[in-house]
Amino acid sequence: MRKRIPVAVLGATGSVGQRFVQLLDAHPWFELVAVTGSERTVGKRYGQACHWVLAEPMPEAVQHLPVLESDPQQVDCPLVFSALPSQRALQLEPRFAQAGAFVCSNASAFRTEPDVPILLPEVNPGHIALLKGQQQRRGWSGAIVTNPNCTSTGFAVVLQALQATFGVRRALAVSLQAISGAGYPGVSSLDILDNVIPYIDGEESKLEWEPRKMLGHLDGGQINLADLVISAHSNRVAVSDGHVVCASLEFQHPVSPEAVQQALLAYQAPETSRELPSTPQPVIVVRDEPDRPQPRLDRWTGSGMTTVVGRIRQDPLLHVKLVILSHNTVRGAAGGSIYNAELLVSMGFLPWVGEA
Amino acid sequence: MRKRIPVAVLGATGSVGQRFVQLLDAHPWFELVAVTGSERTVGKRYGQACHWVLAEPMPEAVQHLPVLESDPQQVDCPLVFSALPSQRALQLEPRFAQAGAFVCSNASAFRTEPDVPILLPEVNPGHIALLKGQQQRRGWSGAIVTNPNCTSTGFAVVLQALQATFGVRRALAVSLQAISGAGYPGVSSLDILDNVIPYIDGEESKLEWEPRKMLGHLDGGQINLADLVISAHSNRVAVSDGHVVCASLEFQHPVSPEAVQQALLAYQAPETSRELPSTPQPVIVVRDEPDRPQPRLDRWTGSGMTTVVGRIRQDPLLHVKLVILSHNTVRGAAGGSIYNAELLVSMGFLPWVGEA
Amino acid sequence: MRKRIPVAVLGATGSVGQRFVQLLDAHPWFELVAVTGSERTVGKRYGQACHWVLAEPMPEAVQHLPVLESDPQQVDCPLVFSALPSQRALQLEPRFAQAGAFVCSNASAFRTEPDVPILLPEVNPGHIALLKGQQQRRGWSGAIVTNPNCTSTGFAVVLQALQATFGVRRALAVSLQAISGAGYPGVSSLDILDNVIPYIDGEESKLEWEPRKMLGHLDGGQINLADLVISAHSNRVAVSDGHVVCASLEFQHPVSPEAVQQALLAYQAPETSRELPSTPQPVIVVRDEPDRPQPRLDRWTGSGMTTVVGRIRQDPLLHVKLVILSHNTVRGAAGGSIYNAELLVSMGFLPWVGEA
Amino acid sequence: MRKRIPVAVLGATGSVGQRFVQLLDAHPWFELVAVTGSERTVGKRYGQACHWVLAEPMPEAVQHLPVLESDPQQVDCPLVFSALPSQRALQLEPRFAQAGAFVCSNASAFRTEPDVPILLPEVNPGHIALLKGQQQRRGWSGAIVTNPNCTSTGFAVVLQALQATFGVRRALAVSLQAISGAGYPGVSSLDILDNVIPYIDGEESKLEWEPRKMLGHLDGGQINLADLVISAHSNRVAVSDGHVVCASLEFQHPVSPEAVQQALLAYQAPETSRELPSTPQPVIVVRDEPDRPQPRLDRWTGSGMTTVVGRIRQDPLLHVKLVILSHNTVRGAAGGSIYNAELLVSMGFLPWVGEA
Repeated sequence: MRKRIPVAVLGATGSVGQRFVQLLDAHPWFELVAVTGSERTVGKRYGQACHWVLAEPMPEAVQHLPVLESDPQQVDCPLVFSALPSQRALQLEPRFAQAGAFVCSNASAFRTEPDVPILLPEVNPGHIALLKGQQQRRGWSGAIVTNPNCTSTGFAVVLQALQATFGVRRALAVSLQAISGAGYPGVSSLDILDNVIPYIDGEESKLEWEPRKMLGHLDGGQINLADLVISAHSNRVAVSDGHVVCASLEFQHPVSPEAVQQALLAYQAPETSRELPSTPQPVIVVRDEPDRPQPRLDRWTGSGMTTVVGRIRQDPLLHVKLVILSHNTVRGAAGGSIYNAELLVSMGFLPWVGEA
Repeated sequence: MRKRIPVAVLGATGSVGQRFVQLLDAHPWFELVAVTGSERTVGKRYGQACHWVLAEPMPEAVQHLPVLESDPQQVDCPLVFSALPSQRALQLEPRFAQAGAFVCSNASAFRTEPDVPILLPEVNPGHIALLKGQQQRRGWSGAIVTNPNCTSTGFAVVLQALQATFGVRRALAVSLQAISGAGYPGVSSLDILDNVIPYIDGEESKLEWEPRKMLGHLDGGQINLADLVISAHSNRVAVSDGHVVCASLEFQHPVSPEAVQQALLAYQAPETSRELPSTPQPVIVVRDEPDRPQPRLDRWTGSGMTTVVGRIRQDPLLHVKLVILSHNTVRGAAGGSIYNAELLVSMGFLPWVGEA
Repeated sequence: MRKRIPVAVLGATGSVGQRFVQLLDAHPWFELVAVTGSERTVGKRYGQACHWVLAEPMPEAVQHLPVLESDPQQVDCPLVFSALPSQRALQLEPRFAQAGAFVCSNASAFRTEPDVPILLPEVNPGHIALLKGQQQRRGWSGAIVTNPNCTSTGFAVVLQALQATFGVRRALAVSLQAISGAGYPGVSSLDILDNVIPYIDGEESKLEWEPRKMLGHLDGGQINLADLVISAHSNRVAVSDGHVVCASLEFQHPVSPEAVQQALLAYQAPETSRELPSTPQPVIVVRDEPDRPQPRLDRWTGSGMTTVVGRIRQDPLLHVKLVILSHNTVRGAAGGSIYNAELLVSMGFLPWVGEA
Repeated sequence: MRKRIPVAVLGATGSVGQRFVQLLDAHPWFELVAVTGSERTVGKRYGQACHWVLAEPMPEAVQHLPVLESDPQQVDCPLVFSALPSQRALQLEPRFAQAGAFVCSNASAFRTEPDVPILLPEVNPGHIALLKGQQQRRGWSGAIVTNPNCTSTGFAVVLQALQATFGVRRALAVSLQAISGAGYPGVSSLDILDNVIPYIDGEESKLEWEPRKMLGHLDGGQINLADLVISAHSNRVAVSDGHVVCASLEFQHPVSPEAVQQALLAYQAPETSRELPSTPQPVIVVRDEPDRPQPRLDRWTGSGMTTVVGRIRQDPLLHVKLVILSHNTVRGAAGGSIYNAELLVSMGFLPWVGEA
């Protein structure tokens, strides 16, 4: 019988780190054996070091793990999940990859590197082919795989579901993003109570660029960005979890709302990503009610991994408009990284421990 | 010395009705002498009948006014403000107009009528010329003037400021609207706490059509709708007052964000509307900070009558994108109607009582 | 093999009714076969009739149930759960009891009746003995069992855990109550955003009286109210689920916070109520952190059935002060009624269908 | 004609500092001429250095003031207002007092010193007599005057209004406190959205002790604490401004709610404090509605300086219970300190500049 693969979470005390810890509890393939944190927390027990902010309780097993430094010498796991801040990720993730670990990272640090995939298994599992070049060029035995920005995630799933059939040409995306996306302590309550902040630093450029890479074609070990223009507005709203995107889409040729709905309903993850533990079931849910999706009611659809779409209707300006909801710390962050790791395992990048 | 003109508020106990009452307190030209309400409240004192929801206290003077029926026989004022629900407005406002009153209405009932102006004094004061035809055709000695939907308001001000110089061709508008826009009790707290509702009944079609009428040209007693395509997404968010619109704009020819900013800063109300008691001072404020305007911080700019704009930047899809904030129950409702009434007075439609 | 007992929910479309429906899904003993609603909804499918407000999705099985009248002729179940408004409950629940049904009611209508128990299985299962007299006196073959007001619930659990050992003499309870306690649409968002409402109609008197009945001694078929004085302040706060009570307690003799903590930790449900499907596991959790319990973090402890206590400390005025949290629509309403029904079944009041 | 007295605000960039700046704008007696801040902000213009969080706009005049070090050599004003954090206040305020300045401090650092008054002009203006001893003992030509903790403020006003007539013996106070009380960034939005935090570090002990000092009798240059036992529970709730206290009170002898109401209505500030620019008009407002006071509706009563009371009713445990509301950053912080300074001026501690 196979044993579970030992894994670590880097930056485990922050809000995304906590989500990794919560989702890895009782994971069928992975066993969380190490957590790392900032200087302030190193040496403490995780239960003491961490100001837990999730509504789901902290798993028993992790409470007594010591918080380690984010150093491959301290953390000896073939697979590490990174919830590090971008600057720290830039510096530390390569050291883990060099030491042989596969790093599934939620940080944005390496997303724009040509040899690092931004991976959504239900969208572009083939991009994992970049890893070969990444390892050769950089001399790593491990590798870095990133998941996209939390807002790009649900948006890219929808774009991909429509891309093959209709060809998406232009898209306008206005996000209403949850406070958990800013980490902890993150957004001050004085800034968001009875308020909207129509700005999130660095967010719009990610939303305008990342989907183009994810929908891009792999050609000779390189990704050609999809020929698609996106304009993004990012807003922070008083919601705990669940990012909403209001999107207007233009296709190669006029497409009806009904055709869009059918394409979304018909969409399935590619064969390789279809039966993994974290595969969203289904990938996309389309709600018929006039006022859905809503973060509070729909964010946990498919255990928080499903992309929920609603209000598919004619757009007087482009072709079709609709509303997308995705759980930002599950599908859009920790859950997405874990799903990426499952894809790595299923494709043979990571050996099962103790396998004959 | 002139005495103030006696005015009434129809539907005075609702949330917009309360805003009328609050703004009319100590108005230099108008004196609130009558309030009307639904059957349930008729006969009570306003102070008893009304569940006051504004942070500003109920004016002393109005507390003892009896709540009357919305009937011109009961309410004898040359000027009435209507905060009636649309169905009631459809039925009752014409009776007041017929009886000789000028009705400044916040209801949507008559906005689509060709002979009824949707009036923003800083945008289209000339449309008041429709009243002549309206009175003739309908045989009224009074008339009905409407203000636009609360979300259309700030959006139309911005469009108008750019229209003359650049010619707006296409616009995408995504709103994040305050709960006060839905009246009282309006939005259930269970629906909006930790949530966004990506839908407001009937709102998007208003936002797509009303600005075209307001920016339209008056020609032979008729308005030709402006040649402008708008696509709208409406969202309800957990904000008390202040509607945000994220807008992407396309002009006749490419325009830079700097040029847009200059045009907005240079914009002034037309001569006729420039020195009225409710004229916004200034009409438009442009904020330079990356994260403004915000409802909590900016809604009271210019006593809630100013349109606040920020984040003017290049749009990769259309030409320019920006964020607009307008106080929905002041500029976008009661304050707007009062401003309309001031325009009527200044143009001689309403005689000063006791004037020589 | 036993089949599940067929049950109905009266008033199933409201917010407590929805919680019944959600908690009965996949219940090991009960099968939801009928739902009732108001005139407006009778005849529709539940999925259409109901504006679902819970974050947990509506169970598949119930979506197609027709909404029936709340009439024993229409609803033929040996066990019915009542989420009816109090006035309706007063009128309709006796008709079901007369027709032979056991009514587990969340309504307050019959709580003050001497022959109707207010039942918390982990507190006073013996009070079920009142049913005999109730049936005889009223000539019913069924019976009515009530659960307490949502705020009384957690408070009574704590009082009972301390009563036997220390004797509680006086208690002050200040509640901070969730909006879901007011049903749907319930609290207007304009009333609670950026606000506290220091008043809930009828609530304080329930909190001052119900625990005295629940902690009362059964003597000759009657309950002698516990000799205990309670003073209550009720507040509504912007929380979705989870009622907080700040309590100061005085005992027969001075008691230390440590002793109170030990008594709470040691408390178990009486033997008869200890192994039922909804028995809270454990009955009481004591948190050590200085800032717990908190509604968002702790309401789902023990699947929402556990009473969570924290901040046990000396009180300069009475003896000990502490903070209590209880999930108001689970332990404090629907979950509590279901737990009551399980007690009825385990004590033989309700026969298993198809049992040999 | 007298010129306004030049004043400085220490710690002017924080949230209480901002409130000082906002309230001092256009003050009839004081002219804000200097602001200080932390190392990070020294040397910048106030407009740049400060992340303004108030809904009222930043006064024009202050935007261009340079942020100075909190050093009496840099800041030469006869009167300084301190919004410093407690640790900094402990160190810096004495240096200003030694240099001859009167320091009106919102910090808690010196409140427990026997020779430093905790001053509410409408409660205990006579305590200003402590200053003489303070100056002698410490060799200061200036002095330090503190205002109480924001939650103690409204509570102490009510206690004082009842003390003379009835003698308050015991009081239980449960607070529901606004987020602005924690400064900026202060409370994380993740901690308070859809939540209550039943704990505020250090708050309960202040609420249990400070009113005893403020209500204490001055005897031979010393204050004898009032013989009064208070028990406090402190909670943080999702409210921007306005602290609510639910209080149960016991008097020397039983007192009726009506008598309490009369005493509160009759209460006036002592003669010396009655006609100052910031004197609350009136000191106490009693609301008759069953559900008031509420933070959103009542916090600005009397320009935020009035204490609002409601729900005066019998208490089954002590004698009377009621609800108190006070604006925590106005009456409970900056506004209170300014009122204290006005008292100092009116009593001759601070000479008018340029007075003949």
